[in-house]
Amino acid sequence: MKPVKVAICGLGTVGGGVFNVLLRNASEIARRAGRPIVVEQVATRTANPNCDTSSVYVSPEVMDVIENPEIDVVVELIGGYDAAYELVMKAIASGKHVVTANKALIAVYGNEIFHAAREAGVIVAFEASVAGGIPIIKSIREGLTANKINWVAGIINGTGNFILTSMNDHGSDFAEVLAEAQELGYAEADPTFDVEGIDAAHKLAILSAIAFGVPLSFDKVYTEGITRIDVEDIRQADALGYAIKHLGITRRTDKGLELRVHPTLIPKERLLANVNGVMNAVMVSGDAVGPTLYYGAGAGAEPTASAVIADLVDVAREMGAEPDSRVPYLAFAEQADDMPVLPMEEIETAYYLRLLAVDRPGVLARVATILSDHGISIEAIIQKDILEGELVPIILLTHTTRESAMNDVIRELESLADIAGGVMRIRVESLEDQ
Amino acid sequence: MKPVKVAICGLGTVGGGVFNVLLRNASEIARRAGRPIVVEQVATRTANPNCDTSSVYVSPEVMDVIENPEIDVVVELIGGYDAAYELVMKAIASGKHVVTANKALIAVYGNEIFHAAREAGVIVAFEASVAGGIPIIKSIREGLTANKINWVAGIINGTGNFILTSMNDHGSDFAEVLAEAQELGYAEADPTFDVEGIDAAHKLAILSAIAFGVPLSFDKVYTEGITRIDVEDIRQADALGYAIKHLGITRRTDKGLELRVHPTLIPKERLLANVNGVMNAVMVSGDAVGPTLYYGAGAGAEPTASAVIADLVDVAREMGAEPDSRVPYLAFAEQADDMPVLPMEEIETAYYLRLLAVDRPGVLARVATILSDHGISIEAIIQKDILEGELVPIILLTHTTRESAMNDVIRELESLADIAGGVMRIRVESLEDQ
Repeated sequence: MKPVKVAICGLGTVGGGVFNVLLRNASEIARRAGRPIVVEQVATRTANPNCDTSSVYVSPEVMDVIENPEIDVVVELIGGYDAAYELVMKAIASGKHVVTANKALIAVYGNEIFHAAREAGVIVAFEASVAGGIPIIKSIREGLTANKINWVAGIINGTGNFILTSMNDHGSDFAEVLAEAQELGYAEADPTFDVEGIDAAHKLAILSAIAFGVPLSFDKVYTEGITRIDVEDIRQADALGYAIKHLGITRRTDKGLELRVHPTLIPKERLLANVNGVMNAVMVSGDAVGPTLYYGAGAGAEPTASAVIADLVDVAREMGAEPDSRVPYLAFAEQADDMPVLPMEEIETAYYLRLLAVDRPGVLARVATILSDHGISIEAIIQKDILEGELVPIILLTHTTRESAMNDVIRELESLADIAGGVMRIRVESLEDQ
Repeated sequence: MKPVKVAICGLGTVGGGVFNVLLRNASEIARRAGRPIVVEQVATRTANPNCDTSSVYVSPEVMDVIENPEIDVVVELIGGYDAAYELVMKAIASGKHVVTANKALIAVYGNEIFHAAREAGVIVAFEASVAGGIPIIKSIREGLTANKINWVAGIINGTGNFILTSMNDHGSDFAEVLAEAQELGYAEADPTFDVEGIDAAHKLAILSAIAFGVPLSFDKVYTEGITRIDVEDIRQADALGYAIKHLGITRRTDKGLELRVHPTLIPKERLLANVNGVMNAVMVSGDAVGPTLYYGAGAGAEPTASAVIADLVDVAREMGAEPDSRVPYLAFAEQADDMPVLPMEEIETAYYLRLLAVDRPGVLARVATILSDHGISIEAIIQKDILEGELVPIILLTHTTRESAMNDVIRELESLADIAGGVMRIRVESLEDQ
């Protein structure tokens, strides 16, 4: 069969990985795809010292690939919004298929991009946009296609997981570990996207859309980072049988969809609690299959290339097919409009609270009364020995309740004269079907 | 688009699950597949009390479905070899696509079946044949298509994993736990297929073929069961930082493919070591993606139905496409013939040995000398306190060596006057790329 000709736009870490793996494994890939996949053009202004591009046409101008009639598939690996958006929309308009690893682009402009692609009859594939080399989009869109998905919960930001793992393993502070992560190249100079959960929110928006058949709703993701997590919380959680992980969670409820990124206590015996360092893992629970988990490298040149090239092979197979026979961009031929995203106040979960009490008789009773007044059952309450001066840490684990009730409780707790400073609140998930 | 019409052959556990999930999730599945998937006929002699078949055509004769011109896809869920083989080959000959969950059929007759299917231009899909609801075949064939696979290692028999987990958790004997598993319905009255590793060998033969692009070679799988594992081994492994799991392992080496099912010590910190009870999980390591893992229910009505229906949706999408554009049956358009399966004597791994020594001075030195004479380095050697009479258990962990050398060592050890009875040998795998 005729080779598929691709243009790699952007030859940074991921672009370089795609270029090298396509060359190194060319014969293996051709044997699998049933036809060769050939790099016809590379668009980049800066050479990648890891790539020998001497035998391929390299152009400095990324938009050049649109004019090249030989190109079947544009591989967008330049990242960011503006130029990437322009490139993708122009590729679609000129009838070229698109493969991208750009989670921000898909999460924010995906609805528009897929609309244009549908009109033009071209494929836009984005496996590499979530969890790097793990074939999580394929697994949800195709592998679990028989299921009504109940929930998805994942460690989908390697930087955040590296930081939490190191804090746990070495008992170090957030700031200290962040500096180490930056030195190792696991965190950017400006780590906001990773540690504040924005990157995870991009990915979660994509996972939620393909799991539940709803439009992409990045602007509705509740997003909380890991910067406030203290080593003390990791220690207390551990003593209670939990690990703290930064999770993206989306769940179908009778009232609507939960869509949230935040630090989470999960039972240590769950596989997800044992996913450490920069690794990613996503749990998906379906009504037929039950809980499943997918684990692997969430970033890096070649793991991400693995996902980009899997998309290229899919495009090679599907480009000749009727558009109606292809896997729908967001998993469903039509999106549902009866599943609104729930405001954070309406989600239901369990909670870990850590507060510092003035060591006066009756403080524990006053704390417990406030929770009871709001109908919240306490699973565990632990009053620790005095650490310094008269302040006593109190640790609480609650049963499932509504976030709005917990907000009220925290407001009342913080207004108690017995309580010094703010209340640390971390949500708790059992990761079991309820 | 036109509905896809299927015949479900066999309405036992899995057939009933497929029937029920197809009905319950019909609208979700149609929205994903882009067209309805309709049960046109059920072939069964015995009713399934969990299924309301009042609105569907039920025939007692399974071969009837071949004569039904309405049927697009035959779903073979009768199991076993003879009738299943006849049904599948007749379906192919009459131009019908086939979906099967029958690992034994595919492992033993797959090469022949796929040859016939290729000639007839029909699809034969078998996701449910390995690891139940986990989309492992799709993940390897499509999700990791960019990779040269290095190795695959999996817990692919839930019965065996339940038994080893229970032995570990409760310190019970194999026989005791097997009886419990039989009571719970996790093990058959005749448990041979599960506990002797034959079922796992069927699945491993399939995984190896799709990972490496070689023909199915069930007859070349080295197969060792779990019946000889003693609680004492589980305890000793635990103390050394290992769990014992019954793994299927296939690995690409310079000299050929390893293809083996046996109990294995793996480091406790690996995710695979934490996969417990009847759950399955498969690790796949590729040259680009690195190590990945897929976890879920390996059996049961609805998890298996999840995989069968995923295949049906793939068939619905691919049946209109050119055969050359479909995913190849065994992942590669052409099979490689330059990767022979290595005889077990030529594989290389590390070993755990447990022996009972007569407590005489110098026995440890004599044991160590035998290993050293065969060029085998010892990682750990532990001589335990006396348990009964004069017999002292000695536990050894070796570095990687060749199986043939270890066979010689064990023969020499067993011939020593110092050693009572046989030597227990369990292979040890780090599950890291080497």
